[in-house]
Amino acid sequence: MEKQKLSVKNSITDYIEWLAQYGASADGGVTRLLYTKEWMDAQLAVKTEMSSFGLETRFDDVGNVFGRLSGTQSPDEVIVTGSHIDTVINGGKYDGAYGVLAAMLALKQLKETYGAPKKTLEAVSLCEEEGSRFPMTYWGSGNMTGVFSEQDAKEPRDESGVSLQTAMHESGFGKGVFQSAYRTDISAFVELHIEQGKTLEMSGRDLGIVTSIAGQRRYLVTLEGECNHAGTTSMKWRKDPLAASSRIIHELLLRSDELPDELRLTCGKITAEPNVANVIPGRVQFSIDIRHQHQHVLEQFHQDMVALINGICLQKGIRAVIDEYMRIEPVPMDERLKAAAFETALENGFSCEEMVSGAGHDAQMIGRRYPACMLFVPSRGGVSHSPKEYTSARQLEIGVRALTDLLYKLAY
Amino acid sequence: MEKQKLSVKNSITDYIEWLAQYGASADGGVTRLLYTKEWMDAQLAVKTEMSSFGLETRFDDVGNVFGRLSGTQSPDEVIVTGSHIDTVINGGKYDGAYGVLAAMLALKQLKETYGAPKKTLEAVSLCEEEGSRFPMTYWGSGNMTGVFSEQDAKEPRDESGVSLQTAMHESGFGKGVFQSAYRTDISAFVELHIEQGKTLEMSGRDLGIVTSIAGQRRYLVTLEGECNHAGTTSMKWRKDPLAASSRIIHELLLRSDELPDELRLTCGKITAEPNVANVIPGRVQFSIDIRHQHQHVLEQFHQDMVALINGICLQKGIRAVIDEYMRIEPVPMDERLKAAAFETALENGFSCEEMVSGAGHDAQMIGRRYPACMLFVPSRGGVSHSPKEYTSARQLEIGVRALTDLLYKLAY
Repeated sequence: MEKQKLSVKNSITDYIEWLAQYGASADGGVTRLLYTKEWMDAQLAVKTEMSSFGLETRFDDVGNVFGRLSGTQSPDEVIVTGSHIDTVINGGKYDGAYGVLAAMLALKQLKETYGAPKKTLEAVSLCEEEGSRFPMTYWGSGNMTGVFSEQDAKEPRDESGVSLQTAMHESGFGKGVFQSAYRTDISAFVELHIEQGKTLEMSGRDLGIVTSIAGQRRYLVTLEGECNHAGTTSMKWRKDPLAASSRIIHELLLRSDELPDELRLTCGKITAEPNVANVIPGRVQFSIDIRHQHQHVLEQFHQDMVALINGICLQKGIRAVIDEYMRIEPVPMDERLKAAAFETALENGFSCEEMVSGAGHDAQMIGRRYPACMLFVPSRGGVSHSPKEYTSARQLEIGVRALTDLLYKLAY
Repeated sequence: MEKQKLSVKNSITDYIEWLAQYGASADGGVTRLLYTKEWMDAQLAVKTEMSSFGLETRFDDVGNVFGRLSGTQSPDEVIVTGSHIDTVINGGKYDGAYGVLAAMLALKQLKETYGAPKKTLEAVSLCEEEGSRFPMTYWGSGNMTGVFSEQDAKEPRDESGVSLQTAMHESGFGKGVFQSAYRTDISAFVELHIEQGKTLEMSGRDLGIVTSIAGQRRYLVTLEGECNHAGTTSMKWRKDPLAASSRIIHELLLRSDELPDELRLTCGKITAEPNVANVIPGRVQFSIDIRHQHQHVLEQFHQDMVALINGICLQKGIRAVIDEYMRIEPVPMDERLKAAAFETALENGFSCEEMVSGAGHDAQMIGRRYPACMLFVPSRGGVSHSPKEYTSARQLEIGVRALTDLLYKLAY
């Protein structure tokens, strides 16, 4: 379907609506999965729009799109700003897209107002962050920072069995036609993003200055007891893994509550077997997702959790297997960039607060190698990854204003 | 496959193996679902064997099989003994079958040793108890006691959509060909059954004299909170139904532990939506199954449970729906029959103990209308509803001996 061109696009809100057309679903959501037609159309449209802003645009070899404003004095010092173009399935209009569009509009306005910067500025539309098509995240920023390369595209497959490599090649990437995605010239990365949580909405502040992107550890805990008849089995002889997991989850939540600063603990997944009302389950699996900005806190909680699980299971005669299948280190944001962001907010009279990002972002991947910082704007009801995701025009504009001024501070 | 006749069948163990051929599965289990070929072959074989014992045999109009030894003095006082012929899918050899075979063998021996009784004795092979084909239990004893009738056969359908009525008719029943299942002439019902639990094995006693068949209440609890991102949602803003259900299940188990005599509480079923590790669930459902021999204890626990669930959910901003979808009143066993059973055990030098049956049995259905009692023999490891279900020859024979002597006491 030929995208109906939004004839007049001025504000960030116009652009949000414009980009949301690519992969729009009936209920107002957006689905743009890596290397699909919707994804490709969106990247081409972004590239064209960047060119119309007078930026030198290009694809790299994994499908990231860059819009460059070369520096007049230190062109090799590149300040990159942007976010990701892909979405979760039936996601919202703002997650990722806002950061891409804000970067483009910021560079457009800086160019129109001040001409070329001293250092180079690049707006980026990163090809993938969500892991919503292939079982892998941060394909865009991961390739930029050398965490991933072509080799890593062979294994992951989507639900219909297409490999990441095949999808990439079919979209024209990964064949050396474009410049390699790997970069060594980044002096700073700035990402504007919706908070996807309620903290700013509840505090009423305009901006969140991210201090750190929390580390994450994810576990799948399997408890094996004795499947038996709910009626005939006395409570004292039971080896009930659902009773044990309820106690474990409850006590872990109590413990996370006692920590001085918030550790975010989520049990999002639980399954019991045979999962029948009148049968004591023989096996229960549940997930644990813990996030904190300090490595030592994660490590201590890990130790306490393992001891708690093993202790309760030993007492109940239950076999416990704790599989830690994901570990992401916390990434502190750059102090200098953070200070500059604070200064920018104050100068504009925007209220702001320091906050930890519990969600992972491209700034986490890039922040491991280069100075990075993130700015958040409020999310209504903290809702994200859903068509109901929403941030008001005024809040969006405050973010763009702050980003533009910060980039001016860094590059002019 | 023509059943390979066990040429010499003397002991109860021979008969257990003989009957287990009907519906035998590869791994040593048995599957005899109501009105299937395996079920029909088994009932016909039981009827033929009863006849060979000199009992007057007949079907009733739902497919129960009776073997009668008419009384010489009070033939209208009928003491019925037996259990159910159907099994769960891939169940064991003893559940139900043991009570049927023991009844047949007891009457055979009484007849051979003492001739006709004063009161009438009937061995019964009840057509269905498990609810393993149709969503309904106790079809045999329910029709005997007027709890069920033909009307009730129309609705329930099996997994392939066949109604209970159609299956019954196709087996030749339910068309008035046989005498109505409804009975008004029962003066006592005695059921010998495997314990299906560990109590006797752990105490080392030969027999359990059932004091009461526990009442049961089953609930499906639905908690609805707010589905959200595990990373971005602060713990203080969460409406996490899995956290709430873990606390509820844990606290309910603590409370059931505090009761003076054991209330059996089982959460056998739990599901979370969307059931994804990095998403706070929006919705959790879990089952609660509580059993106790006293109605007032069940009622009090019900009140406390509802208050606990609503209290925790109110505090957490979670919507709770508590659906009680099953309620079975406790059925105390007959004092006179119990005393006679105790006496019989002592006379034989069998160790025994009083115990509550946490599982439902036909004696519960019949015990609502007529004096009933149950005897248990030990189950290895408390395992039941499984091919691993096992009771030793010696333990089986003690049960048959006790049943025979008890019937002698009641009918001669």
